[in-house]
Amino acid sequence: MRDVAVLGVGQTKFGELWDRSFREIGIEAGLQALVDAKLASENLGGLFLGNMASGGLLEQEHIAPLILDYAGLAGRHLPAVRIEGGGASGGLALHQGFLAVASGLYDYVVVGGAEKLTDVPDSTASQIVSSTADHEWEVVFGATLPSLWALVARRHMHLYGTTREQLAHVAVQAHEMGSKNPNAHFRNRVTVEQVLGAAPVAEPLGVFDCAPLSDGAAAVVLGPLEGARRHTDTPIQIRASEVACDTMALHHRRDVTANDATVAAARAAFSRARRSPKDVGVAEVHDGYSISALLAVEDLGFSEKGRAGPDFASGQFALGGRVSVNPSGGLKAQGRPFGAVGVAQVVELVRQLRGDAKERQAPATDLALAHDLGGTGATAVVHLLARAG
Amino acid sequence: MRDVAVLGVGQTKFGELWDRSFREIGIEAGLQALVDAKLASENLGGLFLGNMASGGLLEQEHIAPLILDYAGLAGRHLPAVRIEGGGASGGLALHQGFLAVASGLYDYVVVGGAEKLTDVPDSTASQIVSSTADHEWEVVFGATLPSLWALVARRHMHLYGTTREQLAHVAVQAHEMGSKNPNAHFRNRVTVEQVLGAAPVAEPLGVFDCAPLSDGAAAVVLGPLEGARRHTDTPIQIRASEVACDTMALHHRRDVTANDATVAAARAAFSRARRSPKDVGVAEVHDGYSISALLAVEDLGFSEKGRAGPDFASGQFALGGRVSVNPSGGLKAQGRPFGAVGVAQVVELVRQLRGDAKERQAPATDLALAHDLGGTGATAVVHLLARAG
Repeated sequence: MRDVAVLGVGQTKFGELWDRSFREIGIEAGLQALVDAKLASENLGGLFLGNMASGGLLEQEHIAPLILDYAGLAGRHLPAVRIEGGGASGGLALHQGFLAVASGLYDYVVVGGAEKLTDVPDSTASQIVSSTADHEWEVVFGATLPSLWALVARRHMHLYGTTREQLAHVAVQAHEMGSKNPNAHFRNRVTVEQVLGAAPVAEPLGVFDCAPLSDGAAAVVLGPLEGARRHTDTPIQIRASEVACDTMALHHRRDVTANDATVAAARAAFSRARRSPKDVGVAEVHDGYSISALLAVEDLGFSEKGRAGPDFASGQFALGGRVSVNPSGGLKAQGRPFGAVGVAQVVELVRQLRGDAKERQAPATDLALAHDLGGTGATAVVHLLARAG
Repeated sequence: MRDVAVLGVGQTKFGELWDRSFREIGIEAGLQALVDAKLASENLGGLFLGNMASGGLLEQEHIAPLILDYAGLAGRHLPAVRIEGGGASGGLALHQGFLAVASGLYDYVVVGGAEKLTDVPDSTASQIVSSTADHEWEVVFGATLPSLWALVARRHMHLYGTTREQLAHVAVQAHEMGSKNPNAHFRNRVTVEQVLGAAPVAEPLGVFDCAPLSDGAAAVVLGPLEGARRHTDTPIQIRASEVACDTMALHHRRDVTANDATVAAARAAFSRARRSPKDVGVAEVHDGYSISALLAVEDLGFSEKGRAGPDFASGQFALGGRVSVNPSGGLKAQGRPFGAVGVAQVVELVRQLRGDAKERQAPATDLALAHDLGGTGATAVVHLLARAG
């Protein structure tokens, strides 16, 4: 299996991009990544595109060739494949791009993620979001994605004494980082009091416990590690790319306060890279809801089970803490354009590992982790990244 | 890159399966393939699932883990990835499964395709079908997938003198083969007169020129060629797996009577396998519309450009002809459950290469070709299969 490196990154602003179309943002991110990788488009081998909702929201399936087409590349007749796995679509697309290069069948590929969620009424978009839970056994009975995560939060509070205040710290930290990120959907700081006083969405989760619906796109160029220095001074190697799944419905889980898919994907990734959670200096984890961030840091091995609340509240996951978690602002503040999230996480980590993250720069580290999640955790994707030696 | 073989195949009946759910048919095909491959589920490494329309029609995205879950495999926390590329979703899923095994990261995977189209009104399903064309530049102006293919047919008739009667022979042959296929949606024979006298859909295409909307699922087990004989006496090697794309909108094509994506994918596949179209004895090609089958045999190199009409009418693509095309009955008669089609093509070809196709058995050959297509040809996937030496 060939070693694979990230050679270039690109990303649009995340937010309510009412003046920009799906195809436009998809192309912008991809072209940025190609330029960053100094890759002439004639050397491009294919596109792997993560997207969740274009069929339901834009009445447009079959979007991977569409993006290539509007990038002016249709005449090259390249392969283009769309991957969907709910909120994990971007991470899964990266996994597929990784396999493509690792196999040797492809040399240079763009992995993109793009989503346009704000061109329709929020109720329509929310319905699509909930279609990542089990339709027949959860959604038809009235469960929505936030309400399912609210059940997880209640259970975590019951078992481990996690408090609303601790959950609020996740949002406070996310907005703090968003304020330093020019691409972020939200750039305002918030206080614990504001988070606690916000309108409830599904108790105990309020508005600030839930990531927004965003438009946005992100892209990376992958290629063989060998020869990567022709494209960049700082090739970032993908040390592991692992996917794991779990039951679709929350009520079938062994323990709703643990995402076993995350545990399995992380274990496989650390084993493959011969590293441990202690080696990770910076991480982008799935914080679609404040409670999701707590589960993530526990299941990835950054906190003991049940300790994530106090650990977040005491700043252990702030910039420069034990692990710098979500320097981008995460889904909460940078935004949540579903299919783009998993790719944007890697864009941020590449910037961190290159030392290019400016105000958001975490202390130097040789291992970064990206964690993408679908639904209430039926799909988890973990990538480990490191500067090539 | 590791050599990859098909070790087992499975398929449900195609048709209007109103008494069976999406998850049920998905599981049936997958388990059949596992049993056929004598693969214990504890040796399974992952699932790659082709599906086009579950979001739009079933309000269920994120379906790959769902199928694993309902197959009783959630506890193993395997990777599961859904791939979407319109009508080419199944072929693309096979490509991704191929990359997974070829890379060495996965040993044994199931590639499945599943679609449930008949649980909603036909108008709803048809709208989803047209979402594989360019929504902003074709569909909003009233174009539907059949009407776009009708334009292609008109142009082919104009340029090459292709006749309605010649197109009709595609359907006659498809129904003839469907009558021999117990899994086929349509098992009745039809005559040229019946095809010509059928109600128009988009002139010159009538009802019998258009493949139906079907429910159905198909699956194959892939694994390394080395060691394949532990699983089957007749491992079938994937000699090439190639994807190519073209413009989304028909009006941007160089020539609407040629699918350049098919040409490119076929050229790459023959080049990789060091074979030529003349070596192919049996093929499953995309005949979503009778005109699509004509383009396919021309673009794959089985007919000279413009000669597919006479070639079909003179039986050159009938069972035992120059190339035995669509012994399964093709999309027209076996049925068109979009995401399942590309996988079912390979199921049929594996049976052909094993000599297990009974009444539909084509003459012995050492090379088989599967051709899957999305929309009006923005995505094409070509696989070449051969019995392992």
